[in-house]
Amino acid sequence: MRLSELSRRSGVSVTTIKYYLREGLLPPGRQLSATQAEYDDDHLRRLRLIRALTGPRGLSVSITRDLLGALEEHTGDIHVLLGLALGAIGPVGEPEGDAPEGSPERGEVDRLVDELGWAVHAGAPARTTLAETLASLRGLGVPLDWRVLLPYARLAERTAALDFDQLEGIDDSLEVMERALLLTVLLEPALLALRRLAQENESARRHAGA
Amino acid sequence: MRLSELSRRSGVSVTTIKYYLREGLLPPGRQLSATQAEYDDDHLRRLRLIRALTGPRGLSVSITRDLLGALEEHTGDIHVLLGLALGAIGPVGEPEGDAPEGSPERGEVDRLVDELGWAVHAGAPARTTLAETLASLRGLGVPLDWRVLLPYARLAERTAALDFDQLEGIDDSLEVMERALLLTVLLEPALLALRRLAQENESARRHAGA
Repeated sequence: MRLSELSRRSGVSVTTIKYYLREGLLPPGRQLSATQAEYDDDHLRRLRLIRALTGPRGLSVSITRDLLGALEEHTGDIHVLLGLALGAIGPVGEPEGDAPEGSPERGEVDRLVDELGWAVHAGAPARTTLAETLASLRGLGVPLDWRVLLPYARLAERTAALDFDQLEGIDDSLEVMERALLLTVLLEPALLALRRLAQENESARRHAGA
Repeated sequence: MRLSELSRRSGVSVTTIKYYLREGLLPPGRQLSATQAEYDDDHLRRLRLIRALTGPRGLSVSITRDLLGALEEHTGDIHVLLGLALGAIGPVGEPEGDAPEGSPERGEVDRLVDELGWAVHAGAPARTTLAETLASLRGLGVPLDWRVLLPYARLAERTAALDFDQLEGIDDSLEVMERALLLTVLLEPALLALRRLAQENESARRHAGA
């Protein structure tokens, strides 16, 4: 298909597609002439993936490019790929700088991970997010200890197992990666929404007759 | 304390504090003269709460004002208060308009909530968030059924129970509300961070020897 049809079918403007081509997020089409190129369904699929990753809750263009590049280089080793993907997604939310490397909260998070026995990178950005949350809550007079996070972490373990269950039965490793990224990023608002609803229900349960 | 000290101790600029006073988020201080007012620790605490709620992942100034107003009007009934608070927090993430009222996805979410037996408002914004997630994933070729969300919802129930456990033993209902809001909003990035770490660990567990 031509650029105009790729734009129509993907819902992404021609200008934006050209930008992705220039930035290397989208591989070039098959050149038909000096000014025309032909695109295929792989381009369409890739374009949808880029939109999902760079969407409202998503990644920067440069991180997306690095990630898509890594996906193609390491198609063999699914664990390396998933590690790269989950690492590249980066910290959750805006870093607030409340708990730098070496802060007491950072030490507590490392202790939490030890206690859980989790095999995760020492430099995982999510550790910093956790330390910042502890520091923020303390600054607001809610002195949560890292032990409070333990039962939450046990539930997160089970959530992650559900996430991986969604990937079972897919053979193509690039497809596994794409789906893992989509589920990780796109399920986030859904999981928070479920918590909100569950809180409303729990509030009714505990306080309805009080 | 004077305005300058309130600013120093809260870390919020004098200009921003004046803005909150003007917008009615912060009650006025005790007027000492035509140009000077005296503030106390309640102002400091309230200011910290406003900052937490309007921070990076937080609420608009107008929603925060409505919420703080509601907290003061309904100090008696904790369930009404929690309902107001959790409802007012609004949808999670940017609404993308993928699943309007009456869409098939919206119907599926209502079915999910029925199946769970949860007592939640028909108009809860989190329902819309869930419907939008289902619609987005489908648009990207990941056809998740609402039933896939059931085990996630069961884990969310247990997470919400942990949330409410943090509120046990606090008697002052305004304080319960403040803490509930802080835990709801501020724990969100931490819960997502725990999921990321748990995914990394689960990936290692499933694929390490493969």
